[in-house]
Formats: sequence, C-alpha cells, structure tokens
Amino acid sequence: MTVEVWADVVCPWCRLGHAYLEQALAAFEHSDDVTVVWRSFELDPAAPRQQEGTLTDHLVAKLGRDRQEIHELNGMITARGCEVGVDFRFDDARPGNTFDAHRLLHLAADHGLDAALMDRLYAGYFTEGLPIGDPATLELLALEVGLDGDEVRAVLASDQYASRVRRDEAEARELQVSGVPFFVFDRRLAAAGAQPADVLLAGLQQAWDSRTDTL
Amino acid sequence: MTVEVWADVVCPWCRLGHAYLEQALAAFEHSDDVTVVWRSFELDPAAPRQQEGTLTDHLVAKLGRDRQEIHELNGMITARGCEVGVDFRFDDARPGNTFDAHRLLHLAADHGLDAALMDRLYAGYFTEGLPIGDPATLELLALEVGLDGDEVRAVLASDQYASRVRRDEAEARELQVSGVPFFVFDRRLAAAGAQPADVLLAGLQQAWDSRTDTL
Repeated sequence: MTVEVWADVVCPWCRLGHAYLEQALAAFEHSDDVTVVWRSFELDPAAPRQQEGTLTDHLVAKLGRDRQEIHELNGMITARGCEVGVDFRFDDARPGNTFDAHRLLHLAADHGLDAALMDRLYAGYFTEGLPIGDPATLELLALEVGLDGDEVRAVLASDQYASRVRRDEAEARELQVSGVPFFVFDRRLAAAGAQPADVLLAGLQQAWDSRTDTL
Repeated sequence: MTVEVWADVVCPWCRLGHAYLEQALAAFEHSDDVTVVWRSFELDPAAPRQQEGTLTDHLVAKLGRDRQEIHELNGMITARGCEVGVDFRFDDARPGNTFDAHRLLHLAADHGLDAALMDRLYAGYFTEGLPIGDPATLELLALEVGLDGDEVRAVLASDQYASRVRRDEAEARELQVSGVPFFVFDRRLAAAGAQPADVLLAGLQQAWDSRTDTL
C-alpha cells in the first residue's frame, strides 16, 4: 500500500505532519507493507533561489513587526516541534526556492534514498540554517545521504526531473489540494493538513481494510 | 474566546473543515463563549474574475484527463462531503477570483453576518453552480443574507475592505500558514488542514483551559 505525501521542504506543518506520520506508521501493524511516496509541492514557486537573510529577517522586513513578535507568532509551531523532537530554529532559517530540492528528491527516489534526503533537507533548513536554494548546499546534503556526486551535479546543472516535479504539482491540482502536507492513502482516502498521528493511523487502517476487502 | 479560520470560499477542504468545526462547537460546553472569525485567504490570487466553463471543464482542459477520471479523483472529497451533509457538485462549479467575495465577507462581519454569508457563498459555489467571481451573483447572495444593497454595491464598485483582505493574508504568512483551512484557537493553538471534529474539539478545550488558567 502506498501513502503519498505532498509536501514542501520549507513548510513547518509538513515537517510536523511527517513526524505524525512516522508515529502512525510505528503503531500500524502492516507498516512493513506501506511505501511512503514524497510528492512535490512548492509553497512559493516564485521565490528567488536564495533570499537575503533569515526567515525572521524576511518576515520583519515584509510585515513591519519586530523580531520578538515574529518569535512569539512562531511559538505555536516551535512548541509542537518540541513535542515530537523537531528543533525548529526559525531565527536561523534561510529560505529560498525549493524547485531544485524537489528535483533532487526525485533523483533520490530512483535510488530509494528519498526518505533519507527528505529528512536531511528538513534538518538542514529548519535546524541548521542551511540555505535551501543554494546548489552547493543541496549537493552536499545529497552526497551525505549517499547519492552519487556526478549524478547530483548533472541534475543540478540541467532541468532533469523538472517534469516529475511539475507532474506532482499538476496532480495536486487535480486532487484540489488546498495546502500541504496532504496525505493520500492508497488513492482511496485523503487527509489535508498536519493531522495528528491517531487520525493518520485511522487513515492507514481504513485504507488497508478496504484494500483487503477487494482481494 | 475566538477561533480564527483562514479559508477560501472555493476550497472544498475548507468547506469540510467548516462542517467539522460546527460539529466540534456543537459538542463544546462553552460554545456560547466562542466567536468564529473568518479570515481571508485566496488559493489563487491570480485567477481571472470568471473562468470559462465549470471546474471539471477547466481540469479536463488543463490536465488532459477525461471527465470520468476527474470525477473519480474528486470522489474522495465528494464522499467526505456526503458524511457531513455537504453536496459537492464539482461538475457544475464555476470557479473564479475570490477577492471580491472576501471583501464582502469583511463587510458582512461588520454587520454580524459573516457566518451567514460564508455559508451562502459555499452553497452557491459548491452546490448551485453559481459563478463565484461574478459581481451580480455576489450582490444577490449578499442581499439574501440581509446585507444592504447600497452598501454591497458600493463595496463591489470600489476597493473597500481590500486592505482587510490583504491584512489577513499577511497574517497568514506570519503564522507560516501552508494551506487552508487553518484554525487558530485564542491565538494559542493552531490546527492546519481539515482536521476532524474531535481534534478541533480538543483544540477548543485546550485553548479554553489554558485561558481560564490565567484568570
């Protein structure tokens, strides 16, 4: 059975939803038979490759609030992260365009390394303050999870896998995805948003049951 | 206590989330002390005022699938709608730009009629096949819920309330909203996505408890 997850690597709710899905899978008796497929979704396709400064700088400049206010607004997400062991450091985060990150995730999927790369990209962006749109950074993170350097550089230097990113995004429109994360269980059931583990577990179970019903 | 809901009137997951919130409020002992505040969010700010044809026509043209495939893809949402008494008729839906609808919702809020107008807009778009971006249609729906015709026409003929729509959308960026519906309970707790009624009820309860703790 597959679980498809539309997500963006700069989306904190996606990172939380990922953690909730891991909790759900840990509690699901058939998790060995579940394949998680990462599907591309860009929250801001028009974002520049790299933005000046950090996410907090950006919000301060754009919204005219002071740093403390932005910090408090992010407090809800930070607190949720704490509960599931995710260390959100928005004051350090360096936003940018995520199209190349998604292209590399498709390369990684062809080598069974997409889950590892997704984890690495999330940690790089949310915790380590790495610039998510910088090709040299992306190359480094891809090599760390075991991808081949020549292949990675060839992808970054071309438009390889662009059509797979676009295809995922077109399917999101078909499914009327109104935001991410967005979970689809076995193409039967969907869950929109960072739903808690018990809801995702119920989705897994329900999709599994309706699957075996038809055997 | 307030519950803020960022939503768009053409977003089926928002319509479902609205139904789940109503269920949660029906089960919440302090629901009389809860004010629901609708906050503006445009899924597609660049959408033309009115699009040719129906949502299904649009998806068929854009994605190269046949009508039956699109129908099946929408089946998940339609089934969820059935469970909560929402009649989604995507084959009839006539998409368009929702900026004017959001401006009218702010006018309605000033008269305590925003909940009624939200319901009316959802029904008009999802069930009755009314063109959501058409000023004459919007005027009609606004009058039906009791707004004053002169006021409605003055808003539609000007840019009144545009700044309130933009303010809501700026706040969504501050809160790193990655999609809609997005619920914020008493500015303390957030829930991203069409979370089920029991999750929203838990959010209401938790926000309420932490509120009374501080009295």
